[in-house]
Amino acid sequence: MSQHPLTQYLDSVPDFPKPGVLFSDISPLLKNHFQETINAMSALFSDEEWAQIDCLAGIESRGFIFASALAYKHNKGIVKVRKQGKLPNVSASVGYSLEYGTDRLEMQQGDGSKIVLFDDLIATGGSMGAAAELCEKVGYDLFGMACLIDLASLNSFKYHDMMVRSVIQLHD
Amino acid sequence: MSQHPLTQYLDSVPDFPKPGVLFSDISPLLKNHFQETINAMSALFSDEEWAQIDCLAGIESRGFIFASALAYKHNKGIVKVRKQGKLPNVSASVGYSLEYGTDRLEMQQGDGSKIVLFDDLIATGGSMGAAAELCEKVGYDLFGMACLIDLASLNSFKYHDMMVRSVIQLHD
Repeated sequence: MSQHPLTQYLDSVPDFPKPGVLFSDISPLLKNHFQETINAMSALFSDEEWAQIDCLAGIESRGFIFASALAYKHNKGIVKVRKQGKLPNVSASVGYSLEYGTDRLEMQQGDGSKIVLFDDLIATGGSMGAAAELCEKVGYDLFGMACLIDLASLNSFKYHDMMVRSVIQLHD
Repeated sequence: MSQHPLTQYLDSVPDFPKPGVLFSDISPLLKNHFQETINAMSALFSDEEWAQIDCLAGIESRGFIFASALAYKHNKGIVKVRKQGKLPNVSASVGYSLEYGTDRLEMQQGDGSKIVLFDDLIATGGSMGAAAELCEKVGYDLFGMACLIDLASLNSFKYHDMMVRSVIQLHD
C-alpha cells in the first residue's frame, strides 16, 4: 500500500510520552501544510455526504483542530466532546480505558442532527468508541468517524458496522 | 457601548465551574453560528495585517477551535500552545498563576515567523500573557493576540504595549 504524500511531514519522536513508544508528531504538518491536510480530510467524505452532515464533533483537544477547520470550510456547526469537568450542562458521559486507568468524555444535549466525529489519531479506538457511543446517548445521529492517522489499519476499530475513515495509515 | 450581535448566543451558566462563577458558554454559538463567529474574529485584523501574519497559535484547548478555522480561512500554519507534558520536543515553557495553584504552557521551537495568539476568552490574562512570553521565548515574532470574549474590557490585559483584540466585550 502506498503512503499518502502528507506522511512525509510527520515527525517520529521515540520514547514519547514514555519509553518504548514511537510518537507521530503532527506539528510540522500543521505548521507547514495545514490547508492541504484539511482538504485531504475533507475528501474522506463525498460532496453528497457533506450535504447531509449537520455538525462536526471534535474530541478534546487535537480533534478540535480538524473539526473546526472542516466546520468552517463546509459551514457546519461545531460540537465539543470534552474531558470530564470541562463542560457545563453536561447531558451524558462515557468512560473508556487507558493503558493505565480510565478517562471520561462528556457532551451536552444533542438535537437529532447528523454528526461526524473527528480526532487526530486512532490507535485502539478507545476514545473514538466512547465518543461515538456518547454522540448517540446525548441524541445525535452518528453519520461518521474520521481521523488524520490510523495506527492500526490492518486491524481497524469499528463502531457497530461503522469504520473510521483516515488520510494516513501507519502500521508495523 | 453596544453589544456585538453574537453576544445573544452565549449561554450564561451560574455556578460553573464552581459556586459564585457565572460561566459564558460558547457552545450554542459554535453549534449554530460558527462561520459567522470565525468571520467576526477574522475582521479583528485587516487584510494588510493578514498578509503579514505567518502562523496562528491556539492555546489549548478552546483556542485551537479559533486558531484552526482562521488558519484554514487564511491559509496559514497552525502552532499549538499546550499544557505541560502533552507536546514532544518542547523548546520552552512558561508558568502562570491560576486562582488555586499554577499551570504551565509549552511550545516547540519557533522560526522567527510572525505569529498571532488565539484563545476563546480572556479574564485576567494569565494564560494569554504566559503564551505571549512563550512565543517570544521559543523564537516567534509576536504580531498580535485575539480572543472571542474579553471579560475585563474596562481594565484590559496588555502584553508590553500590545492589547488583546476581541469580538465580544463583557463586563459588570
